[in-house]
Amino acid sequence: MKYLLTLAAIALIAFQPVKKKKVIFFGDSITQQGAGPNGYIPKVDSLCRQDKLAENFEFVGKGIGGNRVYDLFYRFQEDVLDQKPDIVVVYIGINDVWHKTTSGTGTELSKFGAFYDKMINKMKQAGIQPIMCTPSVIGERNDDSNLQDGDLNFYAKWIREYAAKNNIPLVDLRQSFMSYLDKNNPANEEKGILTTDRVHLNGAGNLLVAQEMWKAVKPLK
Amino acid sequence: MKYLLTLAAIALIAFQPVKKKKVIFFGDSITQQGAGPNGYIPKVDSLCRQDKLAENFEFVGKGIGGNRVYDLFYRFQEDVLDQKPDIVVVYIGINDVWHKTTSGTGTELSKFGAFYDKMINKMKQAGIQPIMCTPSVIGERNDDSNLQDGDLNFYAKWIREYAAKNNIPLVDLRQSFMSYLDKNNPANEEKGILTTDRVHLNGAGNLLVAQEMWKAVKPLK
Amino acid sequence: MKYLLTLAAIALIAFQPVKKKKVIFFGDSITQQGAGPNGYIPKVDSLCRQDKLAENFEFVGKGIGGNRVYDLFYRFQEDVLDQKPDIVVVYIGINDVWHKTTSGTGTELSKFGAFYDKMINKMKQAGIQPIMCTPSVIGERNDDSNLQDGDLNFYAKWIREYAAKNNIPLVDLRQSFMSYLDKNNPANEEKGILTTDRVHLNGAGNLLVAQEMWKAVKPLK
Amino acid sequence: MKYLLTLAAIALIAFQPVKKKKVIFFGDSITQQGAGPNGYIPKVDSLCRQDKLAENFEFVGKGIGGNRVYDLFYRFQEDVLDQKPDIVVVYIGINDVWHKTTSGTGTELSKFGAFYDKMINKMKQAGIQPIMCTPSVIGERNDDSNLQDGDLNFYAKWIREYAAKNNIPLVDLRQSFMSYLDKNNPANEEKGILTTDRVHLNGAGNLLVAQEMWKAVKPLK
Repeated sequence: MKYLLTLAAIALIAFQPVKKKKVIFFGDSITQQGAGPNGYIPKVDSLCRQDKLAENFEFVGKGIGGNRVYDLFYRFQEDVLDQKPDIVVVYIGINDVWHKTTSGTGTELSKFGAFYDKMINKMKQAGIQPIMCTPSVIGERNDDSNLQDGDLNFYAKWIREYAAKNNIPLVDLRQSFMSYLDKNNPANEEKGILTTDRVHLNGAGNLLVAQEMWKAVKPLK
Repeated sequence: MKYLLTLAAIALIAFQPVKKKKVIFFGDSITQQGAGPNGYIPKVDSLCRQDKLAENFEFVGKGIGGNRVYDLFYRFQEDVLDQKPDIVVVYIGINDVWHKTTSGTGTELSKFGAFYDKMINKMKQAGIQPIMCTPSVIGERNDDSNLQDGDLNFYAKWIREYAAKNNIPLVDLRQSFMSYLDKNNPANEEKGILTTDRVHLNGAGNLLVAQEMWKAVKPLK
Repeated sequence: MKYLLTLAAIALIAFQPVKKKKVIFFGDSITQQGAGPNGYIPKVDSLCRQDKLAENFEFVGKGIGGNRVYDLFYRFQEDVLDQKPDIVVVYIGINDVWHKTTSGTGTELSKFGAFYDKMINKMKQAGIQPIMCTPSVIGERNDDSNLQDGDLNFYAKWIREYAAKNNIPLVDLRQSFMSYLDKNNPANEEKGILTTDRVHLNGAGNLLVAQEMWKAVKPLK
Repeated sequence: MKYLLTLAAIALIAFQPVKKKKVIFFGDSITQQGAGPNGYIPKVDSLCRQDKLAENFEFVGKGIGGNRVYDLFYRFQEDVLDQKPDIVVVYIGINDVWHKTTSGTGTELSKFGAFYDKMINKMKQAGIQPIMCTPSVIGERNDDSNLQDGDLNFYAKWIREYAAKNNIPLVDLRQSFMSYLDKNNPANEEKGILTTDRVHLNGAGNLLVAQEMWKAVKPLK
């Protein structure tokens, strides 16, 4: 009898489902599209399954087109805190830079940092693990001649330093994209290698983002 | 004995101080300067004393230079909700328009409205009475030829319509400034009548703002 | 014999064709489109024929999309002086204002005036009669709330004052458009009354421009 | 007698002064300041004297603050063609890029190229030797994180390619500045190494420009 009970207990433990970690991808139109069938979020999910970790993670996209860091803050309570995630991958900054020139409605770095810092602190207080990403590209030319290269580098540098100083996992998308484009853009095109339109990701772009993000998420299982 | 008690009770009520209503002025550099010795906030206080209502109101400035509507939202919890005010006079919008051209970091109207609306709703939920102001001026020329006149009119119109629709007291500073400048700017100067630098208020500007705001605050005693 | 010669001389004079005055319309995309079948230039021609003055004028369009005042100066020798016109109607300024916000490549008023003045002087030296036009609209809202209204008014004011001071015929398109929109835009739409897209002219817009221009050209017969 | 005459003739030829080549430096505020006592033009002159070539060249500054390529074209007849120079060093492009963000009045590359090309062709027709310079810097950070680095690189690339294709001597100031800053800006400051304010040259900057320009001018003696 005792033996049977022990067996049952073992069985119970063995089959008890692991509580999946909820991962929110929090960002702009790239993340909004990233939740679509060919987007980076399903690709992260595939990489996860390939690694036999499907029971460990669930992935949720919370991207809205045109968002800048303060638009994330606007919906931070509802789309992050109220969702009770374990991990939040923040992929923001492109519109903060881009909209300066398209519509005069970007975000200066000091405010970019202030809003970002406030969200990171609120996540930490809520026991949520943040992951930070550097902004990828606005234009794919690989000779530092895209209009916003200087500003993107400036914001990316801030993110890298903030993440290092605060021990936050970093997905250095800008670095990954630059390396990829150095090798794979011999004609120095401004789009068509990782993006469809200089900013939004094509299949190769979504795959690269998924691979880089999965490297950062996987160890947190 | 009963008589004495009654007398005591009457005395108690008579001398019990009225609880002052706390009025927060929530805004940008104009409000930050408005809290200074020659600013509009001490002038509102003077108008209040003139009307023998010093016991009814206390006035607190919460203005920070460069603020746009989303910068107000950034510090809304700490500077408004946590302060437990009765009334909040929101005077914002100039930088949302102005920074579009100076640094590419203004706010488009749709987002301006979304952030404003969210704060108004949170105030109402907290039992706080909001008062809305239209943005005054960027340039004092009175023939509709200041660079941002069109955009300021566009944002002012939204504020007027929102206030009307939601039964929120309105201080139409833009209208007041325009009327004043029609009469008092015969040389069509771009500064020096109500502002020192096209935007920030001189003594006359602070007085005009104080008078208009006091008209809206006084009935809420 | 003498009588016959006299008759012949009279006949010669009577049938000698009047030398047509060559009128160049010099401008941006509005003028480029204005040379098309439904554009304002054929409509000026129709008004001219209606007034039985077809033998007095010929009309030539020299408009190129995106042109600012300095783009006119770039091709001034080839497209104006070398064409030996009698009259040049200059219709420029919208892109000088508009491109400030769309691509950061507009023209400040001081330089706008300098280039304009240089071309006017060169025309006068060459015996060419200039006609100046104020810029029409960027947005058709009639309550001074179009983004660039302030700046357009500022440039229009300069053109009016320059024309008055230098005795140059003026076609005040901005004034004509404003008057028309006050009466004919009750829903305060931003396009569709005189323009297709806030800037470029529909049929009604082309007709209004043609009528106003013809009023200025006709007396120069 | 014949002998004496021959001697006299020889003496005449020997002492006849070489006609100095007139070199115009044509540019913006950097060139305007470059004509001042500590500017790059007197420094070019000093380098010229050091090389015992004082009799071969004379140097004239034609720089005006705020100039973009089309402002050069505006005064091209008066300040270049009418001056009958032998050599013109064109140093332009910073404001074409910079003013996009400061005042919305920069120049897009296609027009930058069109105006530049027109002036080069007119110089060639007039027998004037042009020398082209790439724009130096807007910000001295050496990690590609200055706001306009991408755009400056884009314009510099166009100038390099145009000069190569048309066999025009090139002074690659941007390259020289970048190399210098890689070695001499260890703290990654945004000003103070070659500029006083991110753009305008200090003593070291003026010397570097003078050295690079002299290398291009000297062989044309």
